[in-house]
Amino acid sequence: MRLSQMLFNTLRDDPAEAEIPSHKLLVRAGYIRRIGSGLYAYLPLMWRVLQKVSQIVREEMNATGAQECLLPQLQPSDLWQESGRWDTYTKAEGIMFALQDRQKRELGLGPTHEEVITAIARDMIRSYRQLPVHLYQIQTKFRDEIRPRFGLMRGREFIMKDGYSFHTDRESLQQTYQDMDRAYRNMLRRCGLKFQPVQADSGAIGGGVSQEFMVLAEAGEDEVLYTEDSQYAANVEKAVSLPADAQPSPFTEYKKVETPNTNTIATLCEALGCDATNTVKNVLYQTVYDSGMTVLVLVSIRGDQEVNEVKLTNELTALAPEYGAKAVLAIAVPDPEAQSKWAAKPLPLGYIDPGLGDEYISQQENLAPKFLRLVDRTAVDLQNFATGANETGYHVMGANWGEQFVLPDRIVDVRTAKAGDRAVHDPTQILQTARGIEVGHIFQLGTKYSEAMNATFTSEQGEELPCFMGCYGVGVSRLAQAAVEQSYDKNGIIWPVAIAPYTVIICVPNITDSQQMDVAEKLYQDLQQAGIEVLLDDRKERAGVKFKDADLIGIPYRLVTGRAIKSGKVECVERKTLASEEVAIDDVVSVLQDRIQTALKA
Amino acid sequence: MRLSQMLFNTLRDDPAEAEIPSHKLLVRAGYIRRIGSGLYAYLPLMWRVLQKVSQIVREEMNATGAQECLLPQLQPSDLWQESGRWDTYTKAEGIMFALQDRQKRELGLGPTHEEVITAIARDMIRSYRQLPVHLYQIQTKFRDEIRPRFGLMRGREFIMKDGYSFHTDRESLQQTYQDMDRAYRNMLRRCGLKFQPVQADSGAIGGGVSQEFMVLAEAGEDEVLYTEDSQYAANVEKAVSLPADAQPSPFTEYKKVETPNTNTIATLCEALGCDATNTVKNVLYQTVYDSGMTVLVLVSIRGDQEVNEVKLTNELTALAPEYGAKAVLAIAVPDPEAQSKWAAKPLPLGYIDPGLGDEYISQQENLAPKFLRLVDRTAVDLQNFATGANETGYHVMGANWGEQFVLPDRIVDVRTAKAGDRAVHDPTQILQTARGIEVGHIFQLGTKYSEAMNATFTSEQGEELPCFMGCYGVGVSRLAQAAVEQSYDKNGIIWPVAIAPYTVIICVPNITDSQQMDVAEKLYQDLQQAGIEVLLDDRKERAGVKFKDADLIGIPYRLVTGRAIKSGKVECVERKTLASEEVAIDDVVSVLQDRIQTALKA
Repeated sequence: MRLSQMLFNTLRDDPAEAEIPSHKLLVRAGYIRRIGSGLYAYLPLMWRVLQKVSQIVREEMNATGAQECLLPQLQPSDLWQESGRWDTYTKAEGIMFALQDRQKRELGLGPTHEEVITAIARDMIRSYRQLPVHLYQIQTKFRDEIRPRFGLMRGREFIMKDGYSFHTDRESLQQTYQDMDRAYRNMLRRCGLKFQPVQADSGAIGGGVSQEFMVLAEAGEDEVLYTEDSQYAANVEKAVSLPADAQPSPFTEYKKVETPNTNTIATLCEALGCDATNTVKNVLYQTVYDSGMTVLVLVSIRGDQEVNEVKLTNELTALAPEYGAKAVLAIAVPDPEAQSKWAAKPLPLGYIDPGLGDEYISQQENLAPKFLRLVDRTAVDLQNFATGANETGYHVMGANWGEQFVLPDRIVDVRTAKAGDRAVHDPTQILQTARGIEVGHIFQLGTKYSEAMNATFTSEQGEELPCFMGCYGVGVSRLAQAAVEQSYDKNGIIWPVAIAPYTVIICVPNITDSQQMDVAEKLYQDLQQAGIEVLLDDRKERAGVKFKDADLIGIPYRLVTGRAIKSGKVECVERKTLASEEVAIDDVVSVLQDRIQTALKA
Repeated sequence: MRLSQMLFNTLRDDPAEAEIPSHKLLVRAGYIRRIGSGLYAYLPLMWRVLQKVSQIVREEMNATGAQECLLPQLQPSDLWQESGRWDTYTKAEGIMFALQDRQKRELGLGPTHEEVITAIARDMIRSYRQLPVHLYQIQTKFRDEIRPRFGLMRGREFIMKDGYSFHTDRESLQQTYQDMDRAYRNMLRRCGLKFQPVQADSGAIGGGVSQEFMVLAEAGEDEVLYTEDSQYAANVEKAVSLPADAQPSPFTEYKKVETPNTNTIATLCEALGCDATNTVKNVLYQTVYDSGMTVLVLVSIRGDQEVNEVKLTNELTALAPEYGAKAVLAIAVPDPEAQSKWAAKPLPLGYIDPGLGDEYISQQENLAPKFLRLVDRTAVDLQNFATGANETGYHVMGANWGEQFVLPDRIVDVRTAKAGDRAVHDPTQILQTARGIEVGHIFQLGTKYSEAMNATFTSEQGEELPCFMGCYGVGVSRLAQAAVEQSYDKNGIIWPVAIAPYTVIICVPNITDSQQMDVAEKLYQDLQQAGIEVLLDDRKERAGVKFKDADLIGIPYRLVTGRAIKSGKVECVERKTLASEEVAIDDVVSVLQDRIQTALKA
């Protein structure tokens, strides 16, 4: 491609909308343009990157025997009613765009396709002989994000590969799940990315077992905890660990004490002269299930620990499946308006005790069960602990379960694992932390959708059984931006060779110099002939502008037809290292072929 | 691909939803599945066809220097407000799905992308040196069709290639328009289709000059008129012709006569003993502009002619551009409810005269101008004609313009050209008719969008001028189905070689016969090695089922590893002709390579 014929502009300044380097660079380098909140046009350079990523994804998927298809983006609401996700997706979480057609029938714009594919499987799969089968598509998906940001990272439209497999049993599902794990690692390796597979929470997709693939980068929205022995890695939402041991309690007898201005654990410890591990904090949550049911939840946890709200949400969902597929959680107390709806009298905020009584909760029809008490494992074995006295400005110390307080009978793990904790699989391993960008997520769904939607097959024994399902997603457009987030310098983007829009750019310092243009044209033809994708910067611009732009857009190799052509050479600059050397014009193709091969194998 | 591993079912019976052969066949042969009204899943076989069509389109587009990109499907309403099309598309015609996001901002689901691309051009194009430039995308589009039907022909989701070019002047636009004409002919030829380019109405896209590409097929929704000398072809919506000459009038004097039960031209002619060319009929329309303005229109036309409502709509839009971009037309009189809103007294329906007076129209605020009289050219030169007497059961005969009736001062061409008419370019040529499926449409838009949205460039002389624009669409999914509509027999689909999902299918009559399987596996490997796409029917099914399915799905060449393998041969059946011959196993690859080459060149 000749740059003079391409719709191409670079910007000197960072766009106001952009917060992270990759977003700034993709806009500045002319890869994307914002059309609306979370909506981007992929310009020709970006389109080439996306096609390269897609092709790698496609090859790895096809190699496993998965078949490509394309499903509708508009999805009739009745399919989502069958799976029970319509309300969760369009109302409780509201991440699915919903609309009405001219007949006033409701449709959703697909953020994911479990319902559609399960309807097809129900229609087409009859016998165990048709299984296993795996369909995938590469398609634009939609999410009505609360806060679209970071360019393609969290857009309202984004390109996904989503695949769905169907099986006779769990063993077959696990086999495909493992194949996908391998395929995903291959994809990411081939794209030239540093990544980490991690155990993950399954969220609204469901199914229990799932694994995310994180591209490691400072700007990642996710926190990953891992051990140096490579035996454990998990999203912080899902991670487990051994907390530090509690310190021996300094309290020898039970006593209620006045502790003014101690509504945090830190101020309390200072006032009482104890360690945070000697305290129990009691956090009150208000949760609304997608049935509309509201439940108040009191969580007692050791004072040095934090509640992991993803884990807590999962516990609450599991506790009351009859209330709907998903509980939406909010801390209750900082919201005076919500509180006023259910509190019978003012709560002693900051000083609540583990036995906060029903007398604080008013009778209300949509509160049932109106009150739920949970205790995290970290608080169960504590002795002689300090905790709230249920009276503002007062705590108790030297308290014990079974004496002053009844141990709640629901013991749960809802604590947030954190860097520095000991690993469960080997307590000598200490959890490390890293930031990651989730670019892939694979799930063992089990029979969640096939049971709800009646997608069954006839087994060899003649029984009608629900299919086991897996689903597997890659964020194609997010992955492309994640590659930039992982690889740039002050001059611009540094694309991995495998997914660069072009592999080589020829900069002609002076297009009015016919000798320069002749050499450039010859190289342009020769490289294309050799199957190397090349961009020819034949614009009427100064050499400095061309070099700057070449660095900004991040093409792996830059050839310059400058002074050296007098001695039959061109300058060849590697974008990544900025190392420059002169190469004989006749050797350019073979030299670049070697380097590209080496880079792709790395 | 092994058919045993593919999600694949054929159906014995035609699906209830399907009306035309191609729709029935694509469902029965397992290419598509209906998910909702006008919404289809493209299953793996269909996806391969779509990819092949897309690749041909892409190659022809790239060869012209156009660049591929991808634009958002969700489009902010404010862009469509700028172009003035929001109301037309979401309300008057209602073909654009509209929705609100969680912030209650309005968005449309793109049926086309003039607004988005013009916004990008406005942002990126500064100078004449950047022009011409041409961007295109291959993408799913959305239309909230009043009556989705015919499978992929008129779906609510469909795959389009849409391209948009920007130019300094009309000459440059015309150059690209001609390049696109050539590229489109190449595409359709390469896809193996019989087609006809025709002059077309530009509809809601606008711009005036446009051309459609019709795939000729009985089930086509469009009528094409053409001449045998290949000098003229047009969509009937747009076609012009010379009508038959009027017969000499049998009426010698003006007279009002009682003509009971003659509210059609046929009954009138019989009653009066005259030819339809001796009569003037007066048709009353009610039109609502997208501004909300209602206008009543009386069209006087020679009795043997029909009003072309597309032409009439264009005339009305041109007459009153201040009322909005598009008039929506309806015949007024068959709608008693609408009539009751504006008729001051009962209309003498079937007997209206060309001078229908204002006294019939009530004063109403949204009727302005309340009444418009048009006369078609065919009625202008008539003498001594018969027409309505404006009294039920009465006509006048021997009437003349300028005597009994004032000739309306708006003389227009709103007649429907029809087969049998003489051609304008050569009256010895007679218009022929054919049915067609519109698969492509190219437009010279001019400055319609660039002026409305202020997409300008600085000329070489330093002037700021609006860009000239063209746009060019191909219905990729519609084209794929049109290929079937043009090529099938009673056994099933007959795909053109270039776009068949696979080129060869190997049917193994008995998979438990190891010799048959060995030959089949060897051929399967050899053909793949030679780059020929091959499907291996290794299902546990009877030979008859496999042959039937192979014919139904329409793979161009079928190899059968039957009895002939004893003598080192396989049966090779050409799907199109059903001609069968035995080919030595070692020659299969080269024989097929030859045939495929020949077929692709044809």
